[in-house]
Amino acid sequence: MKWTTEKRYQNYDNWDAATLLQLQAQAANSPYQMHYHIRPQSGLLNDPNGFSYYNGEFHVFYQNFPFGPVHGLKSWFHMTSPDLVHWENKGLALIPDTVYDSHGAYSGSALPLPSGDLFLMYTGNHRDADWIRTPYQLGALMDSKGNVTKLDHPLIMPPDYVSEHFRDPQVIRYNDTYYALLGAQDQETKTGHIVVYKSRDLKQWQDLGYLDFTEQEMGYMIECPNLVFVNDQPVLIFCPQGLDKNIASYDNIYPNMYLIGEDIRLNGPKMTPAQPQPLNLDDGFDVYASQAFNAPDGKAYLISWVGLPDTTYPTDSEGWANCLSQVKELELRDGHLYQHPVVAMGSLRQQGTLLRPERRVNDRQQLLDQSGNQYELRLTLRKNQHGSLHLAASADLSQGLRLDFNTGADASLTLDRGQAGLAVATDYGTTRTITLPAHRDCQLDIFIDGSLCEVFVNDGHNVMTARFFADPSHQTVAFVAEQAIDFTGTYWPLKK
Amino acid sequence: MKWTTEKRYQNYDNWDAATLLQLQAQAANSPYQMHYHIRPQSGLLNDPNGFSYYNGEFHVFYQNFPFGPVHGLKSWFHMTSPDLVHWENKGLALIPDTVYDSHGAYSGSALPLPSGDLFLMYTGNHRDADWIRTPYQLGALMDSKGNVTKLDHPLIMPPDYVSEHFRDPQVIRYNDTYYALLGAQDQETKTGHIVVYKSRDLKQWQDLGYLDFTEQEMGYMIECPNLVFVNDQPVLIFCPQGLDKNIASYDNIYPNMYLIGEDIRLNGPKMTPAQPQPLNLDDGFDVYASQAFNAPDGKAYLISWVGLPDTTYPTDSEGWANCLSQVKELELRDGHLYQHPVVAMGSLRQQGTLLRPERRVNDRQQLLDQSGNQYELRLTLRKNQHGSLHLAASADLSQGLRLDFNTGADASLTLDRGQAGLAVATDYGTTRTITLPAHRDCQLDIFIDGSLCEVFVNDGHNVMTARFFADPSHQTVAFVAEQAIDFTGTYWPLKK
Repeated sequence: MKWTTEKRYQNYDNWDAATLLQLQAQAANSPYQMHYHIRPQSGLLNDPNGFSYYNGEFHVFYQNFPFGPVHGLKSWFHMTSPDLVHWENKGLALIPDTVYDSHGAYSGSALPLPSGDLFLMYTGNHRDADWIRTPYQLGALMDSKGNVTKLDHPLIMPPDYVSEHFRDPQVIRYNDTYYALLGAQDQETKTGHIVVYKSRDLKQWQDLGYLDFTEQEMGYMIECPNLVFVNDQPVLIFCPQGLDKNIASYDNIYPNMYLIGEDIRLNGPKMTPAQPQPLNLDDGFDVYASQAFNAPDGKAYLISWVGLPDTTYPTDSEGWANCLSQVKELELRDGHLYQHPVVAMGSLRQQGTLLRPERRVNDRQQLLDQSGNQYELRLTLRKNQHGSLHLAASADLSQGLRLDFNTGADASLTLDRGQAGLAVATDYGTTRTITLPAHRDCQLDIFIDGSLCEVFVNDGHNVMTARFFADPSHQTVAFVAEQAIDFTGTYWPLKK
Repeated sequence: MKWTTEKRYQNYDNWDAATLLQLQAQAANSPYQMHYHIRPQSGLLNDPNGFSYYNGEFHVFYQNFPFGPVHGLKSWFHMTSPDLVHWENKGLALIPDTVYDSHGAYSGSALPLPSGDLFLMYTGNHRDADWIRTPYQLGALMDSKGNVTKLDHPLIMPPDYVSEHFRDPQVIRYNDTYYALLGAQDQETKTGHIVVYKSRDLKQWQDLGYLDFTEQEMGYMIECPNLVFVNDQPVLIFCPQGLDKNIASYDNIYPNMYLIGEDIRLNGPKMTPAQPQPLNLDDGFDVYASQAFNAPDGKAYLISWVGLPDTTYPTDSEGWANCLSQVKELELRDGHLYQHPVVAMGSLRQQGTLLRPERRVNDRQQLLDQSGNQYELRLTLRKNQHGSLHLAASADLSQGLRLDFNTGADASLTLDRGQAGLAVATDYGTTRTITLPAHRDCQLDIFIDGSLCEVFVNDGHNVMTARFFADPSHQTVAFVAEQAIDFTGTYWPLKK
């Protein structure tokens, strides 16, 4: 199908149900499908929205264009979970059906209200006959039965100092006041900023101007600003598009970064950074548009889009694209942001197997020959070694996802998807590398789910995420090294 | 919406996607929804089809009209499971898109072939311009990736001695030969029969005539004939519509019955019954169109439609209707057919609570005041008592599902949904009663899932199934009796 603008933006009632049913079946039957991550029921998934705890369960929505792997007319698709691991499809919750969101119910956030409703704040994408965009910041209320009522009027109109790029409101409650953080492009300088608004009643919103959080230029646009408190310190998560790589290094087309603050003031908005520059939230290939929130238990949970703007993926040919990451619990330790799998991830584990290295044949130590496509692998690699761990590999190891490690002097870890099946975004390289502490054991907690790999390094000091599109029958896991690798490990097949 | 014939039978591409997405969301958000049973993604669910084990997992399909709670243009919706408890939606697998199934891809069965495909055999419902029906028996092959290819030509044309009611092929392999059992109405006598066909290659089918299995008249039509071997004995499961209640007693609009055979011969088809008359497969309200098959491990598994033909249900107003039962493992013990929850049902259990009777207040013993809507309750009621167990009850017990029990001389158990919320099929009574062995303890294993209740009595000697539509906030469980009830019990909330 040729994706004309008309086709992308036509109303959902101009699509026929047979097409949708076929797209749903195609996605469900994909050999590359994820089975314990949130994936689109059909079509394209992008940003997580409205990540929250409400009415006794966790909620997350995702940006969804149900009719193909393209950025067309977007809705919010609703998911609920008791434990952040087992998610239930609740269907479309916000669809573009007003003049203000005529061209998409774009990203936003959610906040439970004392009234008993869940407040949804989102960007309505409107374009006029000349295709001129107006981004409206809109509100809606969801009740405990899942009924959504949109508020009649926009909450925030774009101020005159921003361009048409003004979106992704994060609504939070702080010091008994409501605030909204918005991603923006300055009209004059065309640089990226975060605008802060304040409200007592969620109806009248007062513009507090740009958040002062850095003296560096944050690219040409900041998307998805997200403030969360981790061990009582503010952490600002955001996507600075076009960020100068001299300011902060990254490899993906656009980075998803974070900045830990010493403290924050939202009224006269200023965050004093505790770091010289922002850092990548994920050291892999595909994480973007992350959302974090503080649950009633005080914990900070994070979820991300695993997918990037302006990037095609091999499943496009199957009519669907992308997924959400697993949820991670955030922790600040020694001034560093750690990410951990949530406790309930353990409930997916089936009978574990202690890995004992098989006899080394030439330079190869086989760990598993039939790993399956859904599993967790925990490994501790002893210090002062180097070699490669091959995952989702063909029997001869010529194909597979590779982790090249060095736990000696120049300690590093490289995730290489260059030989892992179908190519993805190769213009941005096929490897991602992090440094490791020298002469130390390295702990890896690796989650594979179909075409998704998430590696937690050293108890979540780093996370490296990658989509990869290997032949699903490639299920060998093995070390290749000049010397025998000294390690301990456990393998668990995971429930779907 | 008025469900005209035109509306019911219009092609799926004449329905719009917005309508379908809304129906899917409505079903997902229903307060009456089941969360650990198979339920329609949207619209109407009826018969289970193609229940089988293939390519390392269990498969079941359900009859589905996706656009409303009516019997319109039907497809097969595909589900897979590793354990018969956790099911995954795979979308529509067989849709009506040929001249032979122009008015519905109706019920049928599945059989894994040595070639590596899953053979699907089903009834194509065709009507001509004058609305005259021809039922074609059709074939299709599903490969391991879920791709379905329909065979070009009908496998079986209706023979001249049957009426237009000729459907629901069960294909089995027996003594190295393929057989198909079909429900039929005799053209001349308008009585219900089972026709048997035989084939060496699944292409050429030879008519072997009616199965001789009873001397009694089996109503005006037999639907869903199903032969399964339980502890090596043949068990024939079928739905004799219009069966004379003097032949076998039943309360529902149409019964779903079974007959144990001493032995069976399919070539010159005859089953010698081991019972004087058929018995109800389920002693509750809503079980129909059951399908059973022998898995490679030799076990016999059963799954049923929980819903009845020509019956409306309260969720019709929410645009969806019905569900499948939990899967049951069949056992023949002392000449009686027992039904057991499958082993993996235990994996749904969360922390169990040993029930200790609270102090009796007047005639009431409270067990739980917030049971939730998904739980299992195992109770052993000591002999020589009588009373009522109230489930999903309001705090004052004026509303709720009731089990009236007597474990004394006139031992019996009555399931009463007359006060359990919205009315269902009240023309057929609001109670179902079974006799129990006199002066014996009675064991109950009760599964509640939203608006579905399944009671296994005395280790599955009987099963009583009921849909009921109580206010979801009604979550009291209590005994009411003249004397304190002596019992032991455990309660487990179940995972969704």
